[in-house]
Amino acid sequence: MSFQVTARDPLTPARAATLRLPHGAVRTPAFMPVGTNASVKAIWPRDLAELGYRMILANSYHLYLRPGAGEVARLGGLHRFMAWTGNLLTDSGGFQVFSLASLRAVDEDGVSFRSHLDGSLHRLTPESVVGVQTELGSDVMMPLDVCAPAGVDYAAAAQAEEVTARWAARAAARWRAACARRQQLWGIVQGGHFPDLRARSAERIRELDLPGTAIGGLSIGESPARFEATVAHTAALLDPARPRYLMGVGSPDLILCGVEHGVDLFDSVYPTRIARNAQALTCAGPLSLRSGPASLRDEPLDAECACAVCAAHSRAYLRHLFKAREIMAAVLTTYHNLAFLAALMESARQAIGAGRFGAFKSGVLRRYRHRPGGEAGS
Amino acid sequence: MSFQVTARDPLTPARAATLRLPHGAVRTPAFMPVGTNASVKAIWPRDLAELGYRMILANSYHLYLRPGAGEVARLGGLHRFMAWTGNLLTDSGGFQVFSLASLRAVDEDGVSFRSHLDGSLHRLTPESVVGVQTELGSDVMMPLDVCAPAGVDYAAAAQAEEVTARWAARAAARWRAACARRQQLWGIVQGGHFPDLRARSAERIRELDLPGTAIGGLSIGESPARFEATVAHTAALLDPARPRYLMGVGSPDLILCGVEHGVDLFDSVYPTRIARNAQALTCAGPLSLRSGPASLRDEPLDAECACAVCAAHSRAYLRHLFKAREIMAAVLTTYHNLAFLAALMESARQAIGAGRFGAFKSGVLRRYRHRPGGEAGS
Repeated sequence: MSFQVTARDPLTPARAATLRLPHGAVRTPAFMPVGTNASVKAIWPRDLAELGYRMILANSYHLYLRPGAGEVARLGGLHRFMAWTGNLLTDSGGFQVFSLASLRAVDEDGVSFRSHLDGSLHRLTPESVVGVQTELGSDVMMPLDVCAPAGVDYAAAAQAEEVTARWAARAAARWRAACARRQQLWGIVQGGHFPDLRARSAERIRELDLPGTAIGGLSIGESPARFEATVAHTAALLDPARPRYLMGVGSPDLILCGVEHGVDLFDSVYPTRIARNAQALTCAGPLSLRSGPASLRDEPLDAECACAVCAAHSRAYLRHLFKAREIMAAVLTTYHNLAFLAALMESARQAIGAGRFGAFKSGVLRRYRHRPGGEAGS
Repeated sequence: MSFQVTARDPLTPARAATLRLPHGAVRTPAFMPVGTNASVKAIWPRDLAELGYRMILANSYHLYLRPGAGEVARLGGLHRFMAWTGNLLTDSGGFQVFSLASLRAVDEDGVSFRSHLDGSLHRLTPESVVGVQTELGSDVMMPLDVCAPAGVDYAAAAQAEEVTARWAARAAARWRAACARRQQLWGIVQGGHFPDLRARSAERIRELDLPGTAIGGLSIGESPARFEATVAHTAALLDPARPRYLMGVGSPDLILCGVEHGVDLFDSVYPTRIARNAQALTCAGPLSLRSGPASLRDEPLDAECACAVCAAHSRAYLRHLFKAREIMAAVLTTYHNLAFLAALMESARQAIGAGRFGAFKSGVLRRYRHRPGGEAGS
């Protein structure tokens, strides 16, 4: 397990690197598709691998509730369960507890909540969450944290940061005792949009000496300016010798913003979710396949895309599939969106290697954001 | 375009053959998956080809209503529209008019009906249905027919047969004048379960000298005994030098019954529909992936299946995907079911070639029908 920076952009903090984990090498900057229920929705694991993905994410909260971490362990662990031969990062479940579960109650020791599936009562602690992820067998696990909602005041953000820091220390202790040889635990920096809270959080996480660091609490509804300011400020606080992971970010424009500030890894349901909602990623911005003259054309989703969908199918065909509510509408558009993002990340890595990331980013975003009639990403 | 019998079973009318059509050779007996809306639900066209399928079916009724046959023609015809490089058979739309549409009115000239999508009024005639399929550009088209419901009396079955015969003659005349060089028109034998009506229908269709013959009006709710008696009686009436196509049959047991009586081609939504309803085809009969101890096992859907799903995934994983309502549940199970049927048809062709089809069929059905706790196919 190692992290090796292979190229640095001369004008920005952007860097390319190779992250080695138990299930192979990941070239960064990289985007990680999300397999919430041990399945990246609407795409075969073999297709993910063929598109170049070497690391994906799964949600501990969902798998803890169904089928249960013990059941996944009985079935050989998460890699075997979902037939994914690359690396897996599992989140802690904290974000879902705070966004999906009902009747949650946070105390110093942990969080109690009711399942969004059946209302059953559950309790997670920093230690039990490490245990869940040990049973899942992910390559990288995350500690239980408290993600304060966007727009909370200083006191609330400070309190979330405090709890996050104490829980991270407990998670780190359990991890070192239990599974540090086989799995990594990364830290999560919180602190809302308050620079001093981010600095304090980064300092505390750094003290835990974990092999990677995530930036949490972003892409939850804040303005683009606040997003960029917080990413820039926080990324610069993190140890440059370790991977930096910006949680919950998956649109091309926000990913490129993160890369420019030195982020290495990203994850989000964005490209797969918008695919199921009939939006295709293109060089000229997201394309709606439900309406508009552009979706009626006998041409590929993106004329420059080399993916199997763009090689075979027209926009008009995909629009037809969405109108007819065909399953293949989601399958084909998901494949394209993930192919598009994989190609974008490959281009970003090449631009960093060539020392021209800034010009690359400007060129991509000029086209991406200025499509007549196009829709903004998020 | 040709049909060449390559092997005959010595003890039954079963035969193996090669059907050559504009989009390649089809080895029979063969099953044709159904792509209702220009998409075989939940499977990539490239995967169909990889599984060995060389001929699939699409529904004229659905494509006529949405996106419209003219729109398909504008987009390069049905093969290009759905990116299917093999052969396409389109049905006439008659069956859907009589099962899906509302307010239908049959007269001597054709049928008027309201769309099940938006209630709009439409009219199809034997001639216009040939026109629709000419625009779609299928390799084999079917004439507008009247499929009497199961259990109708002699008079109703006789009247349906009469109309079917007169409409077939009109369709054949239009086909010969318009598109007989590029596309085939096959006849459809109706007549319910009345042997003399089937004989009269077969005689009238034979007089039209069409390059293939379908057996219609079966698998619509009749008993297994009546199904087999009608298939046996009707198939024996058809020209042995032309392909015989049993419409609407897709379960392993009924397919093998048809093959035994000399049928060459089959189509049905059965394997793809039961996949979406969490039923997997196995040597030991259909397996429910929603409940039961067999679905919890850490073993493949079918231990003898060589498909990509059985190589990678456990029953327990697929059960989990169905419980979590994941799209990949339908995608993976559909792939397996079509792989299972493709392998079954390949084995049937080999058994015919080896002159032991009867023993092959008995052996398959003994296991297929006698699974403890298994469910019957249909």
